[in-house]
Amino acid sequence: MEMNVLRIDMQAGRVTRAAAGQSLAMLGGRSLIARIVLDEVKPGCDPLGRHNKLLIVPGVLGGTPAPCAGRISVGGKSPLTGGIKESNAGGVAGHKLARLGIKALIFENKPADARGPFILVLAKDSAELVPCPDLAGLGVYESAARLQEKYGKRAGIILIGPAGEKQLTAAGIAITDADGEPGRYCGRGGMGALMGSKGIKAVVIDDSGTRAPQSHDRKRFLEAAREIVRLIQETPQTAQVYRNWGTAALVATTNALGGLPTRNFSTGAFEGADRISGEALRELILARGGLATHSCMPGCPIGCSNRVPRADGSNLVSPLEYETIGLLGSNCGIDDLDAIGEMNRLCNDLGVDTIDIGGAVGVAMEAGLVRFGDAAGAIDLIREIGKGTVLGRVIGHGGALAARVLGVRRVPAVKGQVMPAYEPRGIKGLGVTFATSAMGADHTAGNTVRVQIDHHSPRGQVEASRNAQVSAVIYDMLGVCLFVGPAVKSRIDLLGDLVSAHLGIPCSADVLLELAKETIMREREFNRRAGFTNVHDRLPEHFEEEENPATGTTFDVSDEEIDRMWD
Amino acid sequence: MEMNVLRIDMQAGRVTRAAAGQSLAMLGGRSLIARIVLDEVKPGCDPLGRHNKLLIVPGVLGGTPAPCAGRISVGGKSPLTGGIKESNAGGVAGHKLARLGIKALIFENKPADARGPFILVLAKDSAELVPCPDLAGLGVYESAARLQEKYGKRAGIILIGPAGEKQLTAAGIAITDADGEPGRYCGRGGMGALMGSKGIKAVVIDDSGTRAPQSHDRKRFLEAAREIVRLIQETPQTAQVYRNWGTAALVATTNALGGLPTRNFSTGAFEGADRISGEALRELILARGGLATHSCMPGCPIGCSNRVPRADGSNLVSPLEYETIGLLGSNCGIDDLDAIGEMNRLCNDLGVDTIDIGGAVGVAMEAGLVRFGDAAGAIDLIREIGKGTVLGRVIGHGGALAARVLGVRRVPAVKGQVMPAYEPRGIKGLGVTFATSAMGADHTAGNTVRVQIDHHSPRGQVEASRNAQVSAVIYDMLGVCLFVGPAVKSRIDLLGDLVSAHLGIPCSADVLLELAKETIMREREFNRRAGFTNVHDRLPEHFEEEENPATGTTFDVSDEEIDRMWD
Repeated sequence: MEMNVLRIDMQAGRVTRAAAGQSLAMLGGRSLIARIVLDEVKPGCDPLGRHNKLLIVPGVLGGTPAPCAGRISVGGKSPLTGGIKESNAGGVAGHKLARLGIKALIFENKPADARGPFILVLAKDSAELVPCPDLAGLGVYESAARLQEKYGKRAGIILIGPAGEKQLTAAGIAITDADGEPGRYCGRGGMGALMGSKGIKAVVIDDSGTRAPQSHDRKRFLEAAREIVRLIQETPQTAQVYRNWGTAALVATTNALGGLPTRNFSTGAFEGADRISGEALRELILARGGLATHSCMPGCPIGCSNRVPRADGSNLVSPLEYETIGLLGSNCGIDDLDAIGEMNRLCNDLGVDTIDIGGAVGVAMEAGLVRFGDAAGAIDLIREIGKGTVLGRVIGHGGALAARVLGVRRVPAVKGQVMPAYEPRGIKGLGVTFATSAMGADHTAGNTVRVQIDHHSPRGQVEASRNAQVSAVIYDMLGVCLFVGPAVKSRIDLLGDLVSAHLGIPCSADVLLELAKETIMREREFNRRAGFTNVHDRLPEHFEEEENPATGTTFDVSDEEIDRMWD
Repeated sequence: MEMNVLRIDMQAGRVTRAAAGQSLAMLGGRSLIARIVLDEVKPGCDPLGRHNKLLIVPGVLGGTPAPCAGRISVGGKSPLTGGIKESNAGGVAGHKLARLGIKALIFENKPADARGPFILVLAKDSAELVPCPDLAGLGVYESAARLQEKYGKRAGIILIGPAGEKQLTAAGIAITDADGEPGRYCGRGGMGALMGSKGIKAVVIDDSGTRAPQSHDRKRFLEAAREIVRLIQETPQTAQVYRNWGTAALVATTNALGGLPTRNFSTGAFEGADRISGEALRELILARGGLATHSCMPGCPIGCSNRVPRADGSNLVSPLEYETIGLLGSNCGIDDLDAIGEMNRLCNDLGVDTIDIGGAVGVAMEAGLVRFGDAAGAIDLIREIGKGTVLGRVIGHGGALAARVLGVRRVPAVKGQVMPAYEPRGIKGLGVTFATSAMGADHTAGNTVRVQIDHHSPRGQVEASRNAQVSAVIYDMLGVCLFVGPAVKSRIDLLGDLVSAHLGIPCSADVLLELAKETIMREREFNRRAGFTNVHDRLPEHFEEEENPATGTTFDVSDEEIDRMWD
């Protein structure tokens, strides 16, 4: 199938379609974003101005029956960090875009038409910009419901909430899952604000009448895919841990390592960890008839997601994940899963990243606006975002800005983006990733928590982070969920087989590694042109000066070692 | 007289004194700050953390009878811009410090003693840190009055208001003038926040029993000084314009050029310019029995300052200056000098920079919090700073942060610092200075408004800015007021004569030029190490994309020309 790039010029209100061409065949997701952003986006531009572009890009394996290959990437210059950004999520959008033959959506310019915001409605052979003023300011859940009413429950939806419309820089982009719930988030980097700046409220994807992209060698493709499924089913992490406890299994792990952010990253162990652990969550879900195992996309044999009901059985949130529990929970001193779930739902509905908002609430607590542990106070703070108050704007721009405004010196962020739920003095490899990733502080950019290493020692962390960073790109360019990683980490050749068999272009583990490294170099080059230097590849000062009381360690990986990381 | 460097270690609560040595003899004010900051301050440090240093430094000619030579410089890594900063003011501190033989005060580390804030009391042969908890949170006027009550009306005082104590990054440092009024401001770059972070509320300088630093060749010194005074008295700009109308004379000039910032820099001409002009101000002052001509320091034959009474004759503010009128006046759409004076007094009392606060109020008006022209609303906004509300913190951090929080895309700032009252599409040489100075947007770093050039054309602006930037450093390192410039601009040799005669070290115009260029290079080097690149030497995007309606011009000096500026 011919894959196309659709350019949506918001100034002209015009969609143009062009064949992607063979030169882009091996690029998708994060790697295609790196290529297009470096080639086309003026590095010094205002991220919310007309020179920035919003990219929505499935992975190379999007639409295929490869397991967990439907992730969708969004990208551009980040309004949060000022650097390049790719953020991806599960749900159905990746597969559906690929089935429509879409290699990339590129939103350009600024909207000139005052009838907005707009939705882009994609169907077989059509792409139309439709004004949707009736959705302006509506929450994500209600917006999705109205769009599903109009375009059918089977349509995939990519959308923003009021935070994105207000261009708050902790705004994310929501994606509907296999049940039509808009709970999957491209949360990081303020990409929702970028979407808002383009005047786009939603992209609706109707793939009726399409079929999956055909692979060049279907037999070989299915063989490799089956082998991966077999590995997933044989690997304890994928077959049991993710499946039964979801990502929340990490609470116990990181807490034991002194790496669970607690009370604005002031320590790495939380006395309430047992009450917000994977075990506690599973118990609560099962007792209420929810789903402790759930897949966000078709073709996922892992099922790390969940559906969490309230005590009365009504739907609270899906999924409730580790990062949210760490940031809105322990980082705010909150040990109540119901409260965390309500905060999560509120964030989802407003369309903001739970990580950056958890960071901002933690900062506000340290500043004394609300006391640590006060869930009702935290919920009120998040509600301010929707009210559009100055306080709400401060919170809605995320933790780094909140710290600047409120005068909190313990800033839990790098390049303006809040750290995910890994205390970097307790899990130092993630500290290296946070410091050095072109993405800002981001666990998905190179997670070392499961590397066999002394996480409290500075030794080997740069190497561990580098390996994890390169490896992460492979998944993020193919559109394959990172959680396949534990099953295939020593069989990357199988991913190469999938690409070869699908595209009919020779590929291997080595080719994938090279493409991943090229992607990282492109991202770093964009950031260099955007004004980043090695000074920006640092953790905030206090992590080097204050001990994490849970571990007795500071972050002591040397600047010199970090600066040589990509030589 | 042996000049000394005093280091005040706030952690240890200890003051140490060391001879400055001959190698620093030719350095003072801005040039000494550049040297010490580059040598001693960790470029990547948190500006409000223990690795930053606050420097207070008189000029090379401080304490001497050279005209207008008593300016005082403060410096360090700016909490506002993240780069190096020097900001200077008139008043009596520069002369008095020099009379005490003080070459530089260097405040280091973070206060460990909880009895603070502290005052540093300097007298002949003594330097003492004294806790002053009773002054905590007090306004600048009341604080100064209490200190004068205790230490005498003749003591010079350097102090901060509640904004500096709160470490708000638009906080400045106030200096008392020859009347004891604390109305002279080292306003820019958030140096008040840096002083607050060191736990210092005030420096009190009692120079009783001292005498002026003796010059090596007193006769030659006085000859050169007298020649400069003669030139000042013969030059229309210094003898008439500054003297009669003060800096406010510029309102008519810039308004005619389309260069008077109006309604958040959306245009460069203000329909109310006549009501806030130098003429209008002079008339108002004289009608009320104030002083339209006033000197902020002993030994100033220019008298650009003023004392503005209220309608009831009570003291409103001294001085009321052009930048304040431009930023709190036209930039906020306000054409009422009384209201502007009240805003000025309020800013002075809180201890904030009128330029950055004017920028922030303009931004808040563009965001719709208060309408343009609403003086009462603007005053309420400024009062929020003192109340310590979240809105007050947003305003108190200055215009760039306010724009970020409030989602205003017309950002009137470079490197985080608000532009002074020169619309850069109307006066393009200042646009070049704003873009390229290591200080962030700053008119005193290189003002081209009086250069004979077509201010609307891009041609020749880089050269004009470069010349003005180098020239400015000469004054700022000697401690001589920039306003001597119009009189001596073609007789820089006279300044060289002063230095030679004072220090007994050969000096000339060329030597001064070389020292000035070295200073600029040191500043740029510090910023480079702190993570600045040429991407940061740019005006905000909209100045290149939107026309200034008053001139029909955009800012179109090319990036390439700007990047070659210092080759």
